[in-house]
Amino acid sequence: MRLEKPLPPNSVIGILGGGQLGRMLALAAARLGLQCHIFAPEPESPAFQVAAAHTCAAYADEKALAAFAAAVDVVTYEFENVPAETAALLGRLKPLAPGAEALATSQDRFTEKTFLSKIGLATAPFAAVEDGESLEKAIARIGRPAILKTRRFGYDGKGQTTLEADTALDRAWAAIGAKPAILEGFVAFEKEVSVIAARGWDGAIAVYDVPENHHAGHILRKSIVPAAIASETEAEARDIAARITTALDYVGVIGVELFLAREDGRERLIVNEIAPRVHNSGHWTMDACLVSQFEQHIRAVAGWPLGSPDRHSNVVMTNLLGGEADSWRDLAREPHTGIHLYGKAESRPGRKMGHVNRLTPRQD
Amino acid sequence: MRLEKPLPPNSVIGILGGGQLGRMLALAAARLGLQCHIFAPEPESPAFQVAAAHTCAAYADEKALAAFAAAVDVVTYEFENVPAETAALLGRLKPLAPGAEALATSQDRFTEKTFLSKIGLATAPFAAVEDGESLEKAIARIGRPAILKTRRFGYDGKGQTTLEADTALDRAWAAIGAKPAILEGFVAFEKEVSVIAARGWDGAIAVYDVPENHHAGHILRKSIVPAAIASETEAEARDIAARITTALDYVGVIGVELFLAREDGRERLIVNEIAPRVHNSGHWTMDACLVSQFEQHIRAVAGWPLGSPDRHSNVVMTNLLGGEADSWRDLAREPHTGIHLYGKAESRPGRKMGHVNRLTPRQD
Repeated sequence: MRLEKPLPPNSVIGILGGGQLGRMLALAAARLGLQCHIFAPEPESPAFQVAAAHTCAAYADEKALAAFAAAVDVVTYEFENVPAETAALLGRLKPLAPGAEALATSQDRFTEKTFLSKIGLATAPFAAVEDGESLEKAIARIGRPAILKTRRFGYDGKGQTTLEADTALDRAWAAIGAKPAILEGFVAFEKEVSVIAARGWDGAIAVYDVPENHHAGHILRKSIVPAAIASETEAEARDIAARITTALDYVGVIGVELFLAREDGRERLIVNEIAPRVHNSGHWTMDACLVSQFEQHIRAVAGWPLGSPDRHSNVVMTNLLGGEADSWRDLAREPHTGIHLYGKAESRPGRKMGHVNRLTPRQD
Repeated sequence: MRLEKPLPPNSVIGILGGGQLGRMLALAAARLGLQCHIFAPEPESPAFQVAAAHTCAAYADEKALAAFAAAVDVVTYEFENVPAETAALLGRLKPLAPGAEALATSQDRFTEKTFLSKIGLATAPFAAVEDGESLEKAIARIGRPAILKTRRFGYDGKGQTTLEADTALDRAWAAIGAKPAILEGFVAFEKEVSVIAARGWDGAIAVYDVPENHHAGHILRKSIVPAAIASETEAEARDIAARITTALDYVGVIGVELFLAREDGRERLIVNEIAPRVHNSGHWTMDACLVSQFEQHIRAVAGWPLGSPDRHSNVVMTNLLGGEADSWRDLAREPHTGIHLYGKAESRPGRKMGHVNRLTPRQD
């Protein structure tokens, strides 16, 4: 179902998922006078604290989903692993953005890479793996080292294993749980960057400046904006975002993770992954732009005109993992640091507890 | 009761009042991982929509106040007309910021002006008025034109009347309800400006740049930052804020309304009014500063280090009154305009429904 007209203030945005992304979406919606209704199964969901209404129920609870749909004007989500049946049920009752195609494409790594190839974008070499035999065939074609990933439900490095020259195939296959998988060739990249873009129901597109991303243990640590990349590469990233969102008839904010490789001295972008939602590497927009990725997503799904993605400051975003958030007093003493803490009750090693945006004046 | 130590994330800030100021305070607290519990008598309070908890009860409901106090770690408020008994009751149970002295001083125009005079700040000439006789005496001293205002519960021009040369004193006295009043002499001012400052439990002070304010019908329409004033005047405004907050042992954000007059060619500031709370003329900080007045207030009352009041952009804040907020789609199309709508269910002529901050790059 498509949104028929822009949602006026006091309309209700339904959000599936109650983590920090849902929370920051709800805070952004409130700025615009829009209410949020959060649907999440975890009673301690951080987004519940800042939303006008919430439903604490399982994603398979059809009765709860129907009541949720009846209470909201549009449905969106903070995570890509929304069950297909949940999305289908809600999409029949209310406009769902991003739509079912974006969700299906990004939920399955093989479908995703096939889609990207089809629209002419560069990806790592890849092959579907269903069993030991197809894994052997894939290795023969792609070579080693390579990465074996489950097709579905992987994030932050979970559900993947690296195949070095001496890795036994049966052990790798067991390591990922012997599930439908994809084998991906290694990309010799110089940098990881990403592009955060929004597309409206009307097809309008707004793209933020490209951040350079640093990971540790598969978890994002830092995003630096602007990235030290050629202006042609920046333009190419924008083009990639436009092609993906247009091909998917996408509505909302999207995060596209990219590898930057060098070929014959020139920078080249290879698409790694699509996230059909606001993205951790876009958190810097909260303090360095007038319209954050969260407000932009709300504007997009609610049918509002997209905001300007202009950036008024340079910025380094750093995630606060586990105990790192305990240094909030020291962080609060830094004069040009925006602090964001997620209201999570329990700290665990590696858990995203918050982030900081350190601003410096633009140099251009 | 004073705050013993800084409140860690997940602590609960209690806020009296559920209007737009309470709402924006709650949104700012959420950024820092702090929860809010709103206490307000109106069931449709906009702040309820974004707070982790709320109590809908009368300010005189002692049982509800005690339960509220038990549920929060510190108490603050969004409006200066908190009943003294309410403040006293809560202040015995939990740290209250700003404190009872600030509240008592700003609730009574005569007490306020007497305080300002005592600490050596310039005000309009003033005299207490209890009846027709004292009104005549006051007029004899202050002259006409003058303004007769109730000592208590006046805001946005309510509870005041101007005494022109031919105004009958008994009619003026009746017009303000024959209540304890203050007669204030006219100040021939060039401009209205204000200063928004914060002071922490530790006595640290942070002051924002001075906005120039334009009113219509006693309601703020626009704040322009920076104000076109001499740098000495800017420094004087900062000094005024420091002197007031220090004298009151103030904790939190304060708004001080000032008249700018010219004497022998030099600018001179005259204090008009103190608001012991976040202030409409500080709403521009939401988009032109990293740390808004709302976050600053939360930091102050929660015992956190104050944030930098630095401003990264020039800005004009415009209030959206009544039907003006209906043009949200056009406003959303403006590329460098931050939109803030308050989630009020009902629009009435002159009612503050939201505001916009229009940014331009700094010129210095």
